[in-house]
Amino acid sequence: MVRKLQVAVSGLGRMGARHALHFLEKTPRAELVAACDPDPKCRAWAEEKLAPFGTKVYSDFEEMLKQEGIEAVVIATITTVHAEQSIRAISAGKHVLCEKPLSTSVDVSQSVVDAAAQKPHLKVMCGFSRRFDASYRDAFSRTKSGDIGQASIIRSQTCDKLDPSGFFVDYAQFSGGIFVDCNVHDIDLTLWFFGQDSAVKSVTARWGDVDNGVGIVEFWGGKIAYFYGSRMMAAGQHDMTEVIGTEGKVVINGTPQTNLVEMHESTGVRREIPLNYYGRFAEAFVTESNEFTECCLDDKPLPFKLTGAVQAVKIGCALQESLRSGRKIEFDERGDSVGLEKAKL
Amino acid sequence: MVRKLQVAVSGLGRMGARHALHFLEKTPRAELVAACDPDPKCRAWAEEKLAPFGTKVYSDFEEMLKQEGIEAVVIATITTVHAEQSIRAISAGKHVLCEKPLSTSVDVSQSVVDAAAQKPHLKVMCGFSRRFDASYRDAFSRTKSGDIGQASIIRSQTCDKLDPSGFFVDYAQFSGGIFVDCNVHDIDLTLWFFGQDSAVKSVTARWGDVDNGVGIVEFWGGKIAYFYGSRMMAAGQHDMTEVIGTEGKVVINGTPQTNLVEMHESTGVRREIPLNYYGRFAEAFVTESNEFTECCLDDKPLPFKLTGAVQAVKIGCALQESLRSGRKIEFDERGDSVGLEKAKL
Amino acid sequence: MVRKLQVAVSGLGRMGARHALHFLEKTPRAELVAACDPDPKCRAWAEEKLAPFGTKVYSDFEEMLKQEGIEAVVIATITTVHAEQSIRAISAGKHVLCEKPLSTSVDVSQSVVDAAAQKPHLKVMCGFSRRFDASYRDAFSRTKSGDIGQASIIRSQTCDKLDPSGFFVDYAQFSGGIFVDCNVHDIDLTLWFFGQDSAVKSVTARWGDVDNGVGIVEFWGGKIAYFYGSRMMAAGQHDMTEVIGTEGKVVINGTPQTNLVEMHESTGVRREIPLNYYGRFAEAFVTESNEFTECCLDDKPLPFKLTGAVQAVKIGCALQESLRSGRKIEFDERGDSVGLEKAKL
Amino acid sequence: MVRKLQVAVSGLGRMGARHALHFLEKTPRAELVAACDPDPKCRAWAEEKLAPFGTKVYSDFEEMLKQEGIEAVVIATITTVHAEQSIRAISAGKHVLCEKPLSTSVDVSQSVVDAAAQKPHLKVMCGFSRRFDASYRDAFSRTKSGDIGQASIIRSQTCDKLDPSGFFVDYAQFSGGIFVDCNVHDIDLTLWFFGQDSAVKSVTARWGDVDNGVGIVEFWGGKIAYFYGSRMMAAGQHDMTEVIGTEGKVVINGTPQTNLVEMHESTGVRREIPLNYYGRFAEAFVTESNEFTECCLDDKPLPFKLTGAVQAVKIGCALQESLRSGRKIEFDERGDSVGLEKAKL
Repeated sequence: MVRKLQVAVSGLGRMGARHALHFLEKTPRAELVAACDPDPKCRAWAEEKLAPFGTKVYSDFEEMLKQEGIEAVVIATITTVHAEQSIRAISAGKHVLCEKPLSTSVDVSQSVVDAAAQKPHLKVMCGFSRRFDASYRDAFSRTKSGDIGQASIIRSQTCDKLDPSGFFVDYAQFSGGIFVDCNVHDIDLTLWFFGQDSAVKSVTARWGDVDNGVGIVEFWGGKIAYFYGSRMMAAGQHDMTEVIGTEGKVVINGTPQTNLVEMHESTGVRREIPLNYYGRFAEAFVTESNEFTECCLDDKPLPFKLTGAVQAVKIGCALQESLRSGRKIEFDERGDSVGLEKAKL
Repeated sequence: MVRKLQVAVSGLGRMGARHALHFLEKTPRAELVAACDPDPKCRAWAEEKLAPFGTKVYSDFEEMLKQEGIEAVVIATITTVHAEQSIRAISAGKHVLCEKPLSTSVDVSQSVVDAAAQKPHLKVMCGFSRRFDASYRDAFSRTKSGDIGQASIIRSQTCDKLDPSGFFVDYAQFSGGIFVDCNVHDIDLTLWFFGQDSAVKSVTARWGDVDNGVGIVEFWGGKIAYFYGSRMMAAGQHDMTEVIGTEGKVVINGTPQTNLVEMHESTGVRREIPLNYYGRFAEAFVTESNEFTECCLDDKPLPFKLTGAVQAVKIGCALQESLRSGRKIEFDERGDSVGLEKAKL
Repeated sequence: MVRKLQVAVSGLGRMGARHALHFLEKTPRAELVAACDPDPKCRAWAEEKLAPFGTKVYSDFEEMLKQEGIEAVVIATITTVHAEQSIRAISAGKHVLCEKPLSTSVDVSQSVVDAAAQKPHLKVMCGFSRRFDASYRDAFSRTKSGDIGQASIIRSQTCDKLDPSGFFVDYAQFSGGIFVDCNVHDIDLTLWFFGQDSAVKSVTARWGDVDNGVGIVEFWGGKIAYFYGSRMMAAGQHDMTEVIGTEGKVVINGTPQTNLVEMHESTGVRREIPLNYYGRFAEAFVTESNEFTECCLDDKPLPFKLTGAVQAVKIGCALQESLRSGRKIEFDERGDSVGLEKAKL
Repeated sequence: MVRKLQVAVSGLGRMGARHALHFLEKTPRAELVAACDPDPKCRAWAEEKLAPFGTKVYSDFEEMLKQEGIEAVVIATITTVHAEQSIRAISAGKHVLCEKPLSTSVDVSQSVVDAAAQKPHLKVMCGFSRRFDASYRDAFSRTKSGDIGQASIIRSQTCDKLDPSGFFVDYAQFSGGIFVDCNVHDIDLTLWFFGQDSAVKSVTARWGDVDNGVGIVEFWGGKIAYFYGSRMMAAGQHDMTEVIGTEGKVVINGTPQTNLVEMHESTGVRREIPLNYYGRFAEAFVTESNEFTECCLDDKPLPFKLTGAVQAVKIGCALQESLRSGRKIEFDERGDSVGLEKAKL
């Protein structure tokens, strides 16, 4: 019989429940053997949807970790617990797929990397879901093969549909701010397309009067990325990226769309767009769970390194600091911030 | 001083008024010296808009023709008078730009060609406005240069915005039916792209329960064109064409749009589209008046031959006949209809 | 433990192998327990890819049917065997998912329906994959809820990428011709959008000199569908449909695309499109296998009736007959062909 | 006889020649009576193209100004002469349409405004051509009528096709840099959409290693604009703007295109885009000449005030200063720069 990866999921909220279902239903080489959440409502959901298929449900993370046979843990809790649980799982000898960001603090993020470095045989990955999106991958392979010459400028945005319920405003208190919570994706993509060893030179951000932020990140060597983050999109989720090179440009999702349907009505021609991040990237999450599983089972290298996750948080925090202070944050070529106590980041 | 073409316009209705203004304001090498219309309302418009610039206004076509110095006449009356006035203007030694179609009858259309053949020094053109559209011209030059291999299949449609006033239904009584009035453009474009000497082999049409017609035209040699005509478009005017070749396809106006504006709203992403034929082809009409003027002044060959206009009406009438009878209309390789009295067409 | 549907797949060629993998990897409630193919190469593939997961591999369909516990059979063989194997599986008490078309003959197709009628507790479905596509479903629900008024005209096309190897030309000998093999999808979609009980009135088709066909289907009551089938697309697979109603239009895949990537190059802005049918509809096949499984396990009604598959083949055969004869094929309101021996169809 | 505006054009280079032809051929209410250029090649062109229609050609601007009857002067010289000639023409009692920018210096730009203020009966306009573009106007009227709520964020770019000849690099020496020469359009559009009295609070810009600049402009009250300027576009000219409001977004030219033609080729679906600024905005220039003429003849207010041109240059210069210094340039609520000698701007 074929061996399947024994997976546990920690956190069964919005995204955690999806991760659980992806591993249960859409990851043929994995078996979801355990899941935990301190919230009784989440556990009730798990008892109904997961338990019948053999998943054991826990209220306590530590209890779950003790279950025999677990090989990998998916951390999809609130951000503040990401690092702690990741480190615990690593020390218990489990592979880890941790939702982004590792932490809203650079130092705490680094501590996960340090823990992982102690167990090089484990696969520890930060869930930068866009890296698994078919369109982003297509764009990256074109860029890598030289189709646009030398990539020089990146524009990237993560823009949520306006949520009149104010959910995100509350959420933002714990999420580290728009650049750490949302644009961390754009920062990660920038490091992917420009090269993981790109050294940030300066960071500047401005905040609009509603839920909007604009930032510029300058890299040593002359490359520039600029980001837009918003929670004020009327039409829906619009996450996009363009990579401008010396001989061409590749655009990912320049004009958003839900599917291939176009309505011709008395008001014109209309297309709907995804309502939220998951509506846009559902497939990417499934690819993520499958590839993570494959890397664990076959001892393959992960598609990207964990250290990049620290670099992304560092830039995200610097953007937040620039938002707060109105100042430009500068870094030397080794990546140390200049004229600013490191503690602040 | 530079010589300007002395132009008269007959018919100052919807399209005639536009022609008059194009020659008055947007055709630098022409001078609009006369205009006529039997309708007092149209003349009142002309007295206000044209006369101050030196245009003499007439109620009678024949009277206008007598005005000294007129070199060219634009015929933009109702279709039933096109041929008669064209022939009169030709016999009076004027260049003629006649709105399409020459007539809803093949024989009458041919009589204009015959009249023009008697005066080879005159420029006599049927106003197939789409031939002057920048996008169609671009598509044609790509096709001609072999970019799509051998053009084999054409799909083309002329679709008007739904008009709840019923204007077009009334109008249709005199216009020869949807294939002669609207799709005659698509037929003409087909002859342009397939070659003016393409010989029609068979014609078949079906009529939907509202204002919709579908037709297939088969040519000797194996090429096929299929057309859709409608006056039931909710969003606006959607005239489009695709030319499918053995090595590629060129599409003209596949997804319609008024301009470059895109609205992102709570219902999605929306673009508006032109409300009527003129909204789509205004620029083409201006190019038409300028090129006609240039051909007259510089004695250049017209961009396309008058004989094609008869061929287009022949196919349009055959499509109408097929609509009425439900039968396939067949032609031999010389273009004579088979098993059908020619009179019917 | 949760019960899973015990599935067998017959035919492991191009599409059969995909079906097998969908049931193996992407249908959580199904278990692929058996697969058969007379071709040793296909069986070798199955031994490598399926057997390790517990799928037993057979060379003979009848042998496979005898395996204990099989509840459902997927028929993905060459078209000529579809009906025979479906009927055998039904008589053996299995649910059946048969690739389209049931047969290239109306009578043979009907015999599958008759067999299924004998076993009303079994789920017997013809695999009209486009019915499971998210975009088509979105379009259908909009149409059904009245967003475009009364659906009146349908244009639909199935167009394959030009295959210089000539694979499809060979294949076409056994597939019943372009309208039965490819456009049967468009016919089925028409019956879905117009209503499954729409009665065909006449059918007309024309054949271009290369691999291109155009057809018009007229329904009693005034609705019209027109189809285009081609195997000469330079850019890739372009299957699209537009449904035109009295108050709007819905277009599915008007402008094709592979993903959300847009290349800006010295030659302009470029998007790639799927290379084949599966590239466009892979997700729909997965939805199909999941929904078929759900209907079998939970004894739910199938999303559409088997009888429609006969109606679709009837129209497809009439289109082929019109291609061959150049004649219009007419039907009375009960659906019997007029002035044509039924045998011919 | 109808009175026509007597127009003179100064500067017959690339843009000047176009202005001359627009007034000669496409502005029915104007007459091009004079034109001047110090360059003999430009004058030779004028003798051939303009003189036959009655335009007198000069080498010297002052000589031309003496010609009797001139009512309006179009200044289309190199930027460094814009202000001087505008002031001279104003003092000679002529209406003035001056190409943008008035000057690359704020003070010099202001001197034109001061001169115009002395002669309030004269029409003095800075040629911000995009304000006359049909798409921008459509977007503005939608924004003004509240379709997107409160406009809060603007993204705007002026991006030229890569010119391997290096023309623009040379040109840039005199043009004031990318933000003053190119993005001055985006700045002007921002002031239009946000309101002409928007007070700039801070300005920050970064420069990429090739011909690329990114800038952020913050306004008092919380609005933000961010700009991208580039001369490295492989595909062609891509000038676009998006205005993001609290209830929607309007995008102008998000996906560029030359016309309505779409090519389907073996490499996918391709559209070409304009090769240069004029290819995109030719129609806007014609509208500009017609409206300027109308305002002069009928003593109507110009569509926008001259003072905005100074504000635009002020922001453009501040962006250039930020590029050079790497510093944020701040302004108080009265618009005075903070902590920076005004002289530097």
